[in-house]
Amino acid sequence: MLTGEQYKASLDDGRATYFEGERVKDLPGHPVLGQVVQNVADGYDWLAGQSVDGTNPVSGIPRTPDELRQKVELVHHAGMMAHVNYTSIMTLATAAGRLAGAGPQYVERIQAFTTSAQHSDIRITQCITDAKGDRSLPPSRQDDPDAYVRVVDRSSDGIVIRGAKLHITAASFGHELMTIPTKAMKPGEEQYAIAAMIPVNAPGVKIINTTYAPRHPDPRHFPVSGLESFPEGFVIFDDVFVPNDRVFLDGETEHAAVFAHSLGLWERLGGLTSMADGADVMVGLAQLIAEANGLTRVGHVKEKIAEMIIHATVVRACLEAALVHAETGVFGAVFPNELYTNAGKYTGAASYNLMVRHLHDIAGAAVVTAPSLLDLENPEVGPLARKYMSTSKDVDGEYRTRLFHVIRDLTADSYGGWKQVTNVQAGGGLYAQRIVTRKHYDMDAAKHAALVVAGLAQDAHGPSKGI
Amino acid sequence: MLTGEQYKASLDDGRATYFEGERVKDLPGHPVLGQVVQNVADGYDWLAGQSVDGTNPVSGIPRTPDELRQKVELVHHAGMMAHVNYTSIMTLATAAGRLAGAGPQYVERIQAFTTSAQHSDIRITQCITDAKGDRSLPPSRQDDPDAYVRVVDRSSDGIVIRGAKLHITAASFGHELMTIPTKAMKPGEEQYAIAAMIPVNAPGVKIINTTYAPRHPDPRHFPVSGLESFPEGFVIFDDVFVPNDRVFLDGETEHAAVFAHSLGLWERLGGLTSMADGADVMVGLAQLIAEANGLTRVGHVKEKIAEMIIHATVVRACLEAALVHAETGVFGAVFPNELYTNAGKYTGAASYNLMVRHLHDIAGAAVVTAPSLLDLENPEVGPLARKYMSTSKDVDGEYRTRLFHVIRDLTADSYGGWKQVTNVQAGGGLYAQRIVTRKHYDMDAAKHAALVVAGLAQDAHGPSKGI
Amino acid sequence: MLTGEQYKASLDDGRATYFEGERVKDLPGHPVLGQVVQNVADGYDWLAGQSVDGTNPVSGIPRTPDELRQKVELVHHAGMMAHVNYTSIMTLATAAGRLAGAGPQYVERIQAFTTSAQHSDIRITQCITDAKGDRSLPPSRQDDPDAYVRVVDRSSDGIVIRGAKLHITAASFGHELMTIPTKAMKPGEEQYAIAAMIPVNAPGVKIINTTYAPRHPDPRHFPVSGLESFPEGFVIFDDVFVPNDRVFLDGETEHAAVFAHSLGLWERLGGLTSMADGADVMVGLAQLIAEANGLTRVGHVKEKIAEMIIHATVVRACLEAALVHAETGVFGAVFPNELYTNAGKYTGAASYNLMVRHLHDIAGAAVVTAPSLLDLENPEVGPLARKYMSTSKDVDGEYRTRLFHVIRDLTADSYGGWKQVTNVQAGGGLYAQRIVTRKHYDMDAAKHAALVVAGLAQDAHGPSKGI
Amino acid sequence: MLTGEQYKASLDDGRATYFEGERVKDLPGHPVLGQVVQNVADGYDWLAGQSVDGTNPVSGIPRTPDELRQKVELVHHAGMMAHVNYTSIMTLATAAGRLAGAGPQYVERIQAFTTSAQHSDIRITQCITDAKGDRSLPPSRQDDPDAYVRVVDRSSDGIVIRGAKLHITAASFGHELMTIPTKAMKPGEEQYAIAAMIPVNAPGVKIINTTYAPRHPDPRHFPVSGLESFPEGFVIFDDVFVPNDRVFLDGETEHAAVFAHSLGLWERLGGLTSMADGADVMVGLAQLIAEANGLTRVGHVKEKIAEMIIHATVVRACLEAALVHAETGVFGAVFPNELYTNAGKYTGAASYNLMVRHLHDIAGAAVVTAPSLLDLENPEVGPLARKYMSTSKDVDGEYRTRLFHVIRDLTADSYGGWKQVTNVQAGGGLYAQRIVTRKHYDMDAAKHAALVVAGLAQDAHGPSKGI
Repeated sequence: MLTGEQYKASLDDGRATYFEGERVKDLPGHPVLGQVVQNVADGYDWLAGQSVDGTNPVSGIPRTPDELRQKVELVHHAGMMAHVNYTSIMTLATAAGRLAGAGPQYVERIQAFTTSAQHSDIRITQCITDAKGDRSLPPSRQDDPDAYVRVVDRSSDGIVIRGAKLHITAASFGHELMTIPTKAMKPGEEQYAIAAMIPVNAPGVKIINTTYAPRHPDPRHFPVSGLESFPEGFVIFDDVFVPNDRVFLDGETEHAAVFAHSLGLWERLGGLTSMADGADVMVGLAQLIAEANGLTRVGHVKEKIAEMIIHATVVRACLEAALVHAETGVFGAVFPNELYTNAGKYTGAASYNLMVRHLHDIAGAAVVTAPSLLDLENPEVGPLARKYMSTSKDVDGEYRTRLFHVIRDLTADSYGGWKQVTNVQAGGGLYAQRIVTRKHYDMDAAKHAALVVAGLAQDAHGPSKGI
Repeated sequence: MLTGEQYKASLDDGRATYFEGERVKDLPGHPVLGQVVQNVADGYDWLAGQSVDGTNPVSGIPRTPDELRQKVELVHHAGMMAHVNYTSIMTLATAAGRLAGAGPQYVERIQAFTTSAQHSDIRITQCITDAKGDRSLPPSRQDDPDAYVRVVDRSSDGIVIRGAKLHITAASFGHELMTIPTKAMKPGEEQYAIAAMIPVNAPGVKIINTTYAPRHPDPRHFPVSGLESFPEGFVIFDDVFVPNDRVFLDGETEHAAVFAHSLGLWERLGGLTSMADGADVMVGLAQLIAEANGLTRVGHVKEKIAEMIIHATVVRACLEAALVHAETGVFGAVFPNELYTNAGKYTGAASYNLMVRHLHDIAGAAVVTAPSLLDLENPEVGPLARKYMSTSKDVDGEYRTRLFHVIRDLTADSYGGWKQVTNVQAGGGLYAQRIVTRKHYDMDAAKHAALVVAGLAQDAHGPSKGI
Repeated sequence: MLTGEQYKASLDDGRATYFEGERVKDLPGHPVLGQVVQNVADGYDWLAGQSVDGTNPVSGIPRTPDELRQKVELVHHAGMMAHVNYTSIMTLATAAGRLAGAGPQYVERIQAFTTSAQHSDIRITQCITDAKGDRSLPPSRQDDPDAYVRVVDRSSDGIVIRGAKLHITAASFGHELMTIPTKAMKPGEEQYAIAAMIPVNAPGVKIINTTYAPRHPDPRHFPVSGLESFPEGFVIFDDVFVPNDRVFLDGETEHAAVFAHSLGLWERLGGLTSMADGADVMVGLAQLIAEANGLTRVGHVKEKIAEMIIHATVVRACLEAALVHAETGVFGAVFPNELYTNAGKYTGAASYNLMVRHLHDIAGAAVVTAPSLLDLENPEVGPLARKYMSTSKDVDGEYRTRLFHVIRDLTADSYGGWKQVTNVQAGGGLYAQRIVTRKHYDMDAAKHAALVVAGLAQDAHGPSKGI
Repeated sequence: MLTGEQYKASLDDGRATYFEGERVKDLPGHPVLGQVVQNVADGYDWLAGQSVDGTNPVSGIPRTPDELRQKVELVHHAGMMAHVNYTSIMTLATAAGRLAGAGPQYVERIQAFTTSAQHSDIRITQCITDAKGDRSLPPSRQDDPDAYVRVVDRSSDGIVIRGAKLHITAASFGHELMTIPTKAMKPGEEQYAIAAMIPVNAPGVKIINTTYAPRHPDPRHFPVSGLESFPEGFVIFDDVFVPNDRVFLDGETEHAAVFAHSLGLWERLGGLTSMADGADVMVGLAQLIAEANGLTRVGHVKEKIAEMIIHATVVRACLEAALVHAETGVFGAVFPNELYTNAGKYTGAASYNLMVRHLHDIAGAAVVTAPSLLDLENPEVGPLARKYMSTSKDVDGEYRTRLFHVIRDLTADSYGGWKQVTNVQAGGGLYAQRIVTRKHYDMDAAKHAALVVAGLAQDAHGPSKGI
């Protein structure tokens, strides 16, 4: 396993990564992005501390629902980079089990790469969303043929690809870019049916970073985003050569969607886990600030907190059901149940903004108007600010001020906005999540049950309609 | 076990039961209520057919989550009377495990009664909701002291009770009335802290029945309510004597809520099971009518069905989580998890009316304007009505007409209204369900998680906040 | 103007109208439908009492917003038949102003008919919704070419039409059927681009009635539906001859939608007016039952009533805005603003089921379990039922029982179900109402405002973005 | 009228204002706050350009609904400082009309001050929300008696006050602080029943500023917040002397709520106006980005935009109804209707977060991941970024990028968070808005209408129940 320091050193590999119009020469030392590097390095060291046999404890394929649950927990706490990497590895494992028809060479290459990557303990980010051009047209009918990543040249050694992948979380901070088709492809779109593994520092790869990391002088006002921010990469493949052994699909249009479907499942599982924990945190914040405000016995506040609790419980119930009803795939790998995973992810995302509204309604306007901690330290106004931010002898002014700052950081500032957008968009927008849920629902059973109730089909069960 | 015929005969015991102003002399032969008797009789015969050892297969206490699941399934299909009875038996079992402090005699009496009742295969209904008078006042401050059932006299042999219990499903169709306090009582309210088992035909018991059963000439238009309707009983205790061995609580105010809490759990489990199955039926109906209307490829119809699927899946996820996280009580009895049960019940009830709106929106106005089957049989207009109710060569006019009738019966007629009301009210109104959910939620853990995210507490987990 | 008695006599005209499989010979004397006839007759007599000059006070075209408001109010209180008739007359007036391009003869025929109809004080119902067959196919591609009403034969004197019109409120109780295309037609669909006025008793017209009218012995339990129920007609045109002067469109496909659009506006205005008043009634019922239950000081009850108040106020605000921003059409007729009318109608319908849930949540299960008034009159149980339905010395048991019955009748029984369905479906389903709202919204202005805020267009206003 | 330059100069008056721990010596020259000063100065110059007689066109009291509408429009476009000032002036006018009972001297002082303030064209901010301490306790029972602003000393010349006012928009940028009680006071709370006008530079006044203004290097990425940001002031009265002629209430507890109620009305009117315009801007952005993405013909996108349109229309309908039903107060001043104003404000706030979700769902993840304009200008990656941000020949990459930036700035970044919080909190939280709506609703009329429908009261209207 790599140490944090080894990880840091590994980034000095000539990668072409940009931030607000300038190329970044020194990622670890960058004033805004450096903190991200440190966070990933800490994750490396922490996982090493969890290892029992010198290998990354989240590597390997889960064989039982319990193993799946354990690994998901570990990844969840190891941080975004570990999560992104785990999602990539599991996507490859899932896809390998579904790609036999496309050609055995792809399965072999994927397995060889995966083994090597786990051995060298590198980090892989998944690159899925294309630029996409006009959403109403297929890849082959775009004004710009590069709107979807495609093969523009090929030789006996490999292929050359061109295009861009957007919203690639942490792209500049990993080592490999798992580049896969964004969706199903049709005959005639062979050039777009391309999956490949591309090193971040391959010639022609250029990454523009955007971030919700705070620009304020004092990180204490950003207890979440000041410590953990993962830039999104706008990844450009400016005619990048890929050797054959890193090509995992090349023109087999009927298999183009395998990777995206495999990824979607794991991405939504990750999303669901975060949402379940995040929903509990929102409940906790609502209760803490209600206590600090002296509101815990007010009817409408109790009602709102109860709604938040029910939301958190329902999201977690979906996670539980997804793990309990985990399914086993081709190579014995255990996968979360797709129906429950999607329904939970959808519910978590769809109701999130309302839960934010409840939290704001309980907390009050000081979420956005609480003095800074610097104000609390100013000798002229600090003692007065503390006095008036305190609500009783038992509630310290600074403590309450910090509660407001974490609520703002989480829900009413740059990170909060990023969260609202990505909650909805992760896994493809609410619409996409509805489609996937529908696809995995047992509609025939539901129709039969309806016909039985209507008296239009025979019931195998007892005398009651049971509804 | 009783046969259906034995059950019917058992009702001729002098019970004083009323319907629309008249005393009912012959329940099995009553034009509106007779069908209910037949339904219960069928349930007896069906359960007998499921028995492997000559005893009622739903009797006995579940010892494992799997046993719990099996029994719940059986009860669910055996019909409302079996459900009401099972809920009563499990309430007694649960309460017995929590009543040791009130006095060992109560535990003994409950166990003796339960054993006898299961042996004689009788049916028990739970009587909980009092008349309640002015909801803003406690029992002891009501204008009418009888607003809550109370002890008005006592002798060495037993007690005399007075009061009324409302919304008692199937009260006239069982053999015993499990009469329990509707809520917690305080010191000074000893006379109201009374639990007892009272035969339906005990002198002084008078029951007024109300029902959503259809009054129309042809039951085919009511495929649900025409076959299964369970009158609600307005049960009056007009000074009823109860011998000591049937008194399960008598003045111990601090234990008054034990029965209601025990009942609530099982009632909500039953409600949750019905809602999960019912939500699937609603999805099935929406899909069937969309198909019959030629609407399956219309965007907004697909969206609405997807929302209904997600609703059904989320409700079922809560049921799954409640069973997986089942808890074990004092006598080894397994109980569903209270948090998930309540959150699921709440969600099912709170979103039900919206799901009905979706179904109506997809189905169209023919839900309430489809011709009757009698019209379809009229020689002058029947063939024309069939012709115009058909939507293509593949969709028969009568089939589609019947789909509209079942949707109306389920959601837009007397039974549909009863369903909307009781969905919300079963288990005490949405507000009560919020309170119970909140009570069972691990708020301390949520607060700690929030403090960790705020940087105000130490985290035992990894480097990531995990949200 | 006709008297009520003259109206009753006018129905004995040989019309072929059916109910539950039997032809109705005597409408005024029919056990279920007779009450409807009486209701219409009362409306005739009431309007006569409102007349100042011997003519129907709602006839004539409104020329100012105030006149519009007055007429809408009058119609609203005169009853469903007057409403249906007014909507038909205004539809014809609106359509006449938009039909010049289709041919002057149509405008002349419409005006001649309208004058005559107002003079003879007859009632016209609008027949719009076709059987429609498979909704995914146009009229000309249906398996059954009669799925939409069409011309099947023609002579120099007139045309012969065939087809059916569904959900035609009160069709059997008026004198004329204003038969219009259900939607826009395309070239090649000339036979379906037909509008005509057809007497109810024309040979070949057959009407099947369905109704939510109660079948219970005592109408007191149905204070709304027992007094006012308007059967829906399933109107069949079994090859009906229409003379030329009653044909208002015949093959001009590009004008086929004029009637439906004209009707839609007035139908939604009627719907909006009912919803505004209905929403206030729901608030009133919620408050009355909360008072009777002793719940007025409970937090969540106050919250729910406040939500109901806001709903009622918002719906009424849309009605106010629609009348204030009324527009003037070709012949000087004043029309309600389409944008506000539709947005209000949509809002009223979309939130209705939630308001019902609130009302049920406040009222409690007695909505569906309150004893009948017959029970209250029974000497054995009546006094006891009254006692336990009373909640304090100030709240009489019968009064409270009646409140529950009206809530049930309005929201949780046959009429309630009909209301939920027709709320959503009147004007074409929620989807149709979204489309219409969108069509009338000033999207160019909204886009310009957005560009100004984005700094991508110049602002003519002041220094503030104003948002 | 003051010029913008005169306004700037007026700020150099010794005021004690702080930002992130440091006292601000030069407001116009401050790197973060200076832009605010410029914005206010521009508003002064713009209003001067609108003047026809050399006086501020928004001064004076509206005498007709049309005048009210005109002034509201002008204020709305003149910017936040003009709005805050107008709200203060109208609050004083409204309160003066309601304060006769408290003492004629208060009315006189208010009118004298108002005349003078309008003459000297200064800006007044309203200071209402106290620190409030423990919300469950009244002012007199707080651990810290200063939790609500109070009189701590008095002399023949005036009084000395102590306390803090929070969330005071633009406090540091006006000239006077209209300090009023936050709520009703009870006997015994005389020291807290204090209203006064205090110069910003009065000795003892200290203001801590917080702001959502961006800290990024390039303001082009913040087209809204980069140009218009109004810091919130945490205003501390550290024993401030107020001469008698500036004291507008002093101990008359029964009148303490007059100012807050007067302010609430005007604040909610301002909020409603902003919401109506803001909702249209949201629709425009949704449509523009849907067009740029090629999504305008996708079903679920059209549905979401239609929902946003209906929301915008309903909010505007409330504004229209509030202006049409404007009421006239004591001195002939015209006030918006309170019921419609509140219902509209509530609706706008309650649904805002859902509208944001719709916008995010339509726009996609690029809301938070679009490259910066600096990236677009970088020679190495700029052309590539433009290429991939373009979606067709007709949609320029930079144009689309700017759309994402304005959506982010408005809804998914610091300003967006501030907006979500203040939407809910302005006017006191959703709960407060429910209470106010309820207070102004004609509940007696609603109850009567309900009784009529129930058959329990006589109807003065026609034969129809009209619902």
